[in-house]
Amino acid sequence: MKPHEPTRLTVVGGGSWATALVKIFSENNVSIRWWLRQQADADHIRKYHHNPSYLSDVQINPRKVRVCTSIRDAFRNSDYIVLAVPAAFIADALTGARSKDFEGKHVVSAIKGMIPERNQLVTDWVEEVYGVPAERICVIAGPCHAEEVALEKQSYLTIASSGPDCAGTVAQLLTCRFVQASPLDDIYGVEYSAVMKNIVALACGITHGLGYGDNFQAVLVSNAMQEIRRFVDTIYPKLRDLSASAYLGDLLVTAYSPFSRNRTFGSLIGRGYSVQSAQMEMNMIAEGYYAVKSIHEFNQQYQVPMPIIEAVYNILYEKVSPGAAMNRLKMLLK
Amino acid sequence: MKPHEPTRLTVVGGGSWATALVKIFSENNVSIRWWLRQQADADHIRKYHHNPSYLSDVQINPRKVRVCTSIRDAFRNSDYIVLAVPAAFIADALTGARSKDFEGKHVVSAIKGMIPERNQLVTDWVEEVYGVPAERICVIAGPCHAEEVALEKQSYLTIASSGPDCAGTVAQLLTCRFVQASPLDDIYGVEYSAVMKNIVALACGITHGLGYGDNFQAVLVSNAMQEIRRFVDTIYPKLRDLSASAYLGDLLVTAYSPFSRNRTFGSLIGRGYSVQSAQMEMNMIAEGYYAVKSIHEFNQQYQVPMPIIEAVYNILYEKVSPGAAMNRLKMLLK
Repeated sequence: MKPHEPTRLTVVGGGSWATALVKIFSENNVSIRWWLRQQADADHIRKYHHNPSYLSDVQINPRKVRVCTSIRDAFRNSDYIVLAVPAAFIADALTGARSKDFEGKHVVSAIKGMIPERNQLVTDWVEEVYGVPAERICVIAGPCHAEEVALEKQSYLTIASSGPDCAGTVAQLLTCRFVQASPLDDIYGVEYSAVMKNIVALACGITHGLGYGDNFQAVLVSNAMQEIRRFVDTIYPKLRDLSASAYLGDLLVTAYSPFSRNRTFGSLIGRGYSVQSAQMEMNMIAEGYYAVKSIHEFNQQYQVPMPIIEAVYNILYEKVSPGAAMNRLKMLLK
Repeated sequence: MKPHEPTRLTVVGGGSWATALVKIFSENNVSIRWWLRQQADADHIRKYHHNPSYLSDVQINPRKVRVCTSIRDAFRNSDYIVLAVPAAFIADALTGARSKDFEGKHVVSAIKGMIPERNQLVTDWVEEVYGVPAERICVIAGPCHAEEVALEKQSYLTIASSGPDCAGTVAQLLTCRFVQASPLDDIYGVEYSAVMKNIVALACGITHGLGYGDNFQAVLVSNAMQEIRRFVDTIYPKLRDLSASAYLGDLLVTAYSPFSRNRTFGSLIGRGYSVQSAQMEMNMIAEGYYAVKSIHEFNQQYQVPMPIIEAVYNILYEKVSPGAAMNRLKMLLK
């Protein structure tokens, strides 16, 4: 009997989450083209079998993974395009790819953010700009820090799509020794709450930086869950259990973990750093910074009451001092 | 105009939570009789105005607080009896008090546990044994570590009773510069989830001790919220928002905080300590240890599926190794 052909994947992005996904997929029967922007990174991986810039302890299996820096080469003969760069850079990363290059392929978004200039979810953008049908698009969500994937710590992912097929297949491709992936049929709910949890993590960081304690953070996160519920139930009403891992779990790992970029960024803001100096200090993008602007603007038409989101927006974009914004917010929580 | 008479309170218990409650109540117009078991502690507080054993930085205001070691003295002329000792010791602490001593008084339970020999909630026990009417009983819940109250960090409490009056008044008595207290009408839901969150914190500690990471803990806590929902919705069906601070927030502060006794206890178990040596090491009671037995036995008649609770029970009472129990549990989570 002839063995099953490997599933052909393209992974777009050279950061820690992209590297973690390459590691997870490599546990299964796949053939991966891994697109990275930097030629030097690609050369390094080809030669030394690890990413020099992120999760450099992760061994890259050369029998399963080929790196490249041409997006159209990366797409050729692929079944699944996995997008894993920050939302702010995805349009740039895909420059050179055309609608035709997406034909017949599935798109898997591992991006937790919105396209900044459009206030649009990445999956909606892919559908609109590249003509990929909705039933061929899914998102990867779930409480999963790349750093723990590198250490092969037991993790869980949720794969959400509007139909069941795409999510089911991708969940199988991501299930391995240390990852259990499950499909879910709530792509919008999962995607919006993934975007919002980065903002909540920012809020947690800000209050932490201001000296608020664990008691306050627990109340902040509880109230944030209620905000997320109000928002997704308004935008996309559907029966959903927000205490599932894809929603609550994802929020928790981001809000409570020391690995969280958004929390770290918020903490610097709370301690008095300007946005610019916090970004320089971290040398990394905190997606919540862009997300809060998108959600704030997007919410203009819905006017869902979201005091936590608004507090973060006011601090980052309206020059309200973190202390004053949180003093006001704390009266609204319970 | 004559100023309002102070509300007369009795606080039963000498631990850190009792001390924190005395501090919070003292911010308002109250007259407190504080019962402690140890004469030496009472003498020390009378002389030096702080508790020698717990939260010793907290100043006790001698104009508002009088200490005593006779439970009947403590009850005399009081409007509210506040119970703040571990559930396992409350019957013992109240030895000497009779039903008559409770007459006309309200009972405020700050105990997060069940009476071990009876698998009974503290409020049900007070009603049954001392004949206190249900409408005069409430519970204090909410994400609130005593240690942060001592530091006057902004905190929130939820006061739950079956009717609105008792909870409303007690909430006013507990609201102060650094605490915001809100009433809620779900006494059973709040009390059961407060009991269960200690067990979940134990589970978090055990998996942490075994080397599981943050990704796993986020999924564990999400699944735990679903277990709590299944349980309270079965025992006491009611429309409730489990992401409110009294439920989710309380779970978070216990599961994620380094102050949590239950988490610390679990962590020792996960690292291979026996129950006995973990208890000796900590020199403190982890309420989850008793709670898991009560919930397990109580659930025999309902058979609500609760794999996390069962895993902890099997580890602590059925000599199943933590590694094996969590290996089995991890396959059931998603």
